[in-house]
Amino acid sequence: MKFTAHIDVMPLKELLDPQGKAVTESLHNLGLASINQVRVGKHITLSLEAASQDEARNKTEEACKKLLANQVMESYTFEITEG
Amino acid sequence: MKFTAHIDVMPLKELLDPQGKAVTESLHNLGLASINQVRVGKHITLSLEAASQDEARNKTEEACKKLLANQVMESYTFEITEG
Repeated sequence: MKFTAHIDVMPLKELLDPQGKAVTESLHNLGLASINQVRVGKHITLSLEAASQDEARNKTEEACKKLLANQVMESYTFEITEG
Repeated sequence: MKFTAHIDVMPLKELLDPQGKAVTESLHNLGLASINQVRVGKHITLSLEAASQDEARNKTEEACKKLLANQVMESYTFEITEG
């Protein structure tokens, strides 16, 4: 069966996010003063073949841990959908 | 009222995504051969003050169009949650 994983990789809350800070300031300069606490991370989608939703979940977890997220600085969450 | 916007900015489907292709190959090299069609984009969260969900939606739309997404190469989707 074919599954799609939708993964978000975000900088840990405890860490400064300089890119997010730069974006916040740029938005203020563009007149959007009510926007704050911008954090910028990665959104990754991927297709995978697996026998079950559980297997798809395990493979996605492995991909996140081995390559997609640096767990020293980032946390990840994901959702698996069929198809 | 305070809202949070969860924004995904992804490369358009019609365009090659070299970063996604590199990630696909790396995952194969790590033994995850069943993973394909990796696409890498940005995930952005931000807080904003607005009188209503509609106003929060409009402001987020404006932020995406003016700064967060380059609509020549990227598409964006977002969700607004309260708090």
